[in-house]
Amino acid sequence: MDRRSFLKNTAIGGSAAAATSLAAPAYAQGNRTLTLVTTWGRGLAGVHDSAQRVADNITALTDGQVTVDLKAAGELVGAFEVFDAVTSGQADMYHGADYYFVGQHPGYAFFTAVPMGMTAQELVNWYYMDGGMELHDELGQIFGLKSFLAGNTGAQSGGWFKSEINSPEDFQGLKFRMPGLGGQALGKLGASVQNLPGAEVYQALASGAIDGTEWIGPWADEKAGFQEITKIYYTSGFHEPGAGLSLATNREVFESLTPTQQKIIEIASAECHQWNLAQFLSENAAALQRLQSAGVTVREFPDAVWDAFGRASQEVHDENMGDELYKKIYDSAMASMRSSSEWIAKSTGAYLAQRDRVLG
Amino acid sequence: MDRRSFLKNTAIGGSAAAATSLAAPAYAQGNRTLTLVTTWGRGLAGVHDSAQRVADNITALTDGQVTVDLKAAGELVGAFEVFDAVTSGQADMYHGADYYFVGQHPGYAFFTAVPMGMTAQELVNWYYMDGGMELHDELGQIFGLKSFLAGNTGAQSGGWFKSEINSPEDFQGLKFRMPGLGGQALGKLGASVQNLPGAEVYQALASGAIDGTEWIGPWADEKAGFQEITKIYYTSGFHEPGAGLSLATNREVFESLTPTQQKIIEIASAECHQWNLAQFLSENAAALQRLQSAGVTVREFPDAVWDAFGRASQEVHDENMGDELYKKIYDSAMASMRSSSEWIAKSTGAYLAQRDRVLG
Repeated sequence: MDRRSFLKNTAIGGSAAAATSLAAPAYAQGNRTLTLVTTWGRGLAGVHDSAQRVADNITALTDGQVTVDLKAAGELVGAFEVFDAVTSGQADMYHGADYYFVGQHPGYAFFTAVPMGMTAQELVNWYYMDGGMELHDELGQIFGLKSFLAGNTGAQSGGWFKSEINSPEDFQGLKFRMPGLGGQALGKLGASVQNLPGAEVYQALASGAIDGTEWIGPWADEKAGFQEITKIYYTSGFHEPGAGLSLATNREVFESLTPTQQKIIEIASAECHQWNLAQFLSENAAALQRLQSAGVTVREFPDAVWDAFGRASQEVHDENMGDELYKKIYDSAMASMRSSSEWIAKSTGAYLAQRDRVLG
Repeated sequence: MDRRSFLKNTAIGGSAAAATSLAAPAYAQGNRTLTLVTTWGRGLAGVHDSAQRVADNITALTDGQVTVDLKAAGELVGAFEVFDAVTSGQADMYHGADYYFVGQHPGYAFFTAVPMGMTAQELVNWYYMDGGMELHDELGQIFGLKSFLAGNTGAQSGGWFKSEINSPEDFQGLKFRMPGLGGQALGKLGASVQNLPGAEVYQALASGAIDGTEWIGPWADEKAGFQEITKIYYTSGFHEPGAGLSLATNREVFESLTPTQQKIIEIASAECHQWNLAQFLSENAAALQRLQSAGVTVREFPDAVWDAFGRASQEVHDENMGDELYKKIYDSAMASMRSSSEWIAKSTGAYLAQRDRVLG
């Protein structure tokens, strides 16, 4: 990384230490500020919240030894520039959805979501128990990053459309916003796929630059205001069944921290994943009711469309299998998902079917 | 609390500080050791693990300012004595399943699980977003505790039986181990219900002191060895659809900690909840396959039995509604559960149905 920017962002060689050393106790001489850039416009529901939470918790848990200074998308660099900003040392950390960076490596998709892939709980099982975290780190070593899951939107909605989707052919020529491998799969169905950061989606939909968009789910979508433009909403989507968000720290910066500070980043990130998922799930039900009251009609894609989603998703995976690390991540994730999903169906799934039957 | 025991467990007035002060830097003078007692025998799969993890993480994140010293069940006090040990100040913290303490207050059941109640994800949503944590704290204020969720077993199995359950009448006279409100509900079906700590269950089943038992799920049950005694196993149970575990700190001790140390306990507990749930879910599928290979036959209770579970569970709730705080917790939990479950069914539920159909 750029050593000058490193020194600028630490108290060791800079003037920040001098400014605070009179008031601070002796052990605080190593205090430093880390700049966190994000892929989220300031205040974007849920996603900015999780970036802010993990930033604040790192600051709080280190007792101010490490202050995380959040710069939302556009405040220091653009949403999609955060990866390069952190690998180059221009910023110290980013919070974002790693599937924005499939251009850097397609394996990053798995740490947000892949089409027809894992739910949030399956992702958690894979990440913390079945090797996911280690594979995230293997990717990070290539790019000079130390990454942890630090947020989750839950299952994302299929999205907003200007007319109904009755067959796979309805995606032909449709200008649609969808990032990651899900977007690539939609391209296989003939859609003209665009990957816009959240802060730019409303304007694109309003102006007709795109015909439709997915964003996250009822709560965040309502805040974004898409219901002002169209009323046709598909709740269940194939593209992001449990979208993880990541906190990535420049690896040299991470290694310059104390073991305690490193552990704080790890644990604060994991806590933020659970908190953020609960936030999205809890907010979505109420928001969906409000959207329906405002005239939004809720739909589900027909089976033939899901079948096409399934074929297109597998095509996208197959195209990437030539990359050894991609295949390694795919194999690991899919093995964990199959195992997880079997037990979850037999326990929570069977329970919920009986509870809903008995309680009505 | 007992002031002498408080001083004994802190470095401020004790010899522990003197012993370490030469080597430790100036800011470490406040170092202290907190004694954590648990409801788990040392090494009990998953549940002891989560107690150990949160203990180790508090020690690590405070950089050793707070060392948590874990005493498993029987090492300082018995499994079911931990509540009194911490409220009286004999120990500083406990890790356990709060439904063991329905005798202290029936509302504690909700912070582990209630029959026909919340899944782990629904519990998380309620706890962190819909008022559950605040109600846990309201209970804690009565007893001088500061509690946080700090583990989860996921949906628990229906349990081990010496003969098949074909109708609700088969529970008549059955000597069965089941704690909490689930056990009370089973009593309504005529079972003779016992509440044994985990470390004592195997012997009770082997000796015939009980006819059957639930414990946790395939992984922990296999480690407990119940398959050596009987081969009849019901995977989906009504009694604990997502059993939370708690870390409770004596409130005076908690308030004597710095805000940073308090926050570390809160965040380490929440992280441990997510980690422990992943651990159980990930281990259960593989363990179930091993159990089946060892001759265990897997069953599901018939609908008529589930109907009886539902009626009995509601009876137990109704009996407790005279307690104002119980009713407040019940109303809050059930409102959150209904809202959560509706959205989860429409998003993750609808997705999984399609994914499983498409992928086969």
